[in-house]
Amino acid sequence: MKYLMTITYDGKNYNGFQRQNDKPTIQSEVEHALEILLKEKIEIIGSGRTDAKVSAYKQTINFETDKQIDKDKFIYSMNGILQNDIKVLDIIQSNIHARFTEKKKTYLYKMYISEFAHPLYKDRLTISKNIDIKAMKKFLKMIKGTHDFIGFKSAGSEVNSTVRTIYNAKLIKTNSKLDFYITGNGFLYKMVRNIVGTMLKVGEYKLDLKELKQTIFKTYKSTYTAPSEYLYLYDIKYLKK
Amino acid sequence: MKYLMTITYDGKNYNGFQRQNDKPTIQSEVEHALEILLKEKIEIIGSGRTDAKVSAYKQTINFETDKQIDKDKFIYSMNGILQNDIKVLDIIQSNIHARFTEKKKTYLYKMYISEFAHPLYKDRLTISKNIDIKAMKKFLKMIKGTHDFIGFKSAGSEVNSTVRTIYNAKLIKTNSKLDFYITGNGFLYKMVRNIVGTMLKVGEYKLDLKELKQTIFKTYKSTYTAPSEYLYLYDIKYLKK
Repeated sequence: MKYLMTITYDGKNYNGFQRQNDKPTIQSEVEHALEILLKEKIEIIGSGRTDAKVSAYKQTINFETDKQIDKDKFIYSMNGILQNDIKVLDIIQSNIHARFTEKKKTYLYKMYISEFAHPLYKDRLTISKNIDIKAMKKFLKMIKGTHDFIGFKSAGSEVNSTVRTIYNAKLIKTNSKLDFYITGNGFLYKMVRNIVGTMLKVGEYKLDLKELKQTIFKTYKSTYTAPSEYLYLYDIKYLKK
Repeated sequence: MKYLMTITYDGKNYNGFQRQNDKPTIQSEVEHALEILLKEKIEIIGSGRTDAKVSAYKQTINFETDKQIDKDKFIYSMNGILQNDIKVLDIIQSNIHARFTEKKKTYLYKMYISEFAHPLYKDRLTISKNIDIKAMKKFLKMIKGTHDFIGFKSAGSEVNSTVRTIYNAKLIKTNSKLDFYITGNGFLYKMVRNIVGTMLKVGEYKLDLKELKQTIFKTYKSTYTAPSEYLYLYDIKYLKK
């Protein structure tokens, strides 16, 4: 039977999602817990790989087993076996492929507007009070739609196509908290962090919007990848069942 | 000159506000930073003492010095000297007494409704899905106003009167987040945590509301002090200038 499991994790102490030798990763922790519970070797496939320190409100994962799984018992047992940093939210029997089934994926990047790193907002990137949020919003309008995002891809992973569709990209300011949500059909390696980096440079007047508009999907190359620890995989919605 | 300084802190790694020998406290850290900056021994008076692990979005503090303080420079320098866990938000010259001037003080207690401790809400107390929020709100109606809160005071500090006024007490639910705000003219030792503890027992049906109504300001004695690390001093408003 093929299962689709939803998990959440605080990635601060992990070397990313993908299994690596000798380093703690989300994949190795989850596979280890599944092996203890199901008493067989299990390999999982995630909806995508989150980088070192990236967290997830929701991450979806496939695995296969011949064993019948009782949802409530399974969640309860897995959450007893797993570390405090990783928990199972849901599990269903499903033919959805976590990675390849068409989906809408949303990331959240957390920022805080302050002249110093605020003690009670350590999970947010500190942003200057002088930042131009209107300019940042203009940049976000530019990236919506289907474009070649090669300028926002960091070296390090090979893909067939660098064209992606951004369904939505918005900034929500609540007092000094600034939340950036971006929804797309998929993201290139470090693409969200390069979009955040470019957005912040626009907000700090280090990039001219008019000039950027000419080059963005042609010769532009992002030079600032925003730090990973403030990035959260926020939601995944599969478009077929 | 007498100054009123506003600070914020993450109290998780501190043994409370009040200075103690050999243990890190907010008072000793702030006094130490003031001494470095002003080059004289400074004693501070807080609006009140927060317990070990309690944090503050806003805490007000008095100190005296003959030195003239330039607000922007002072804040910038203090925040450079202080640890990451404590920062200065504001400073004004003022005759307000941080502790004795009449005020409205607000505490926030953070909870999260979940069957397990959620990795991304470690700063919140985990509350069962079965909790009766309506019953908890009925209890909050009972405590509003001026009453003798002796049943909500933990042993360990002597006060002249155990009568306090609660201006407001409310629960705000946002998805699974549950925030409890309580505003009063002052709080007895561990009073907020005993109110939260009683409220949770009411929500779990371990205390009968009708019975509690008969005894609450008479023979009732709180037996559950909610954990300190989810408590935040949220706001302080002085009623005179």
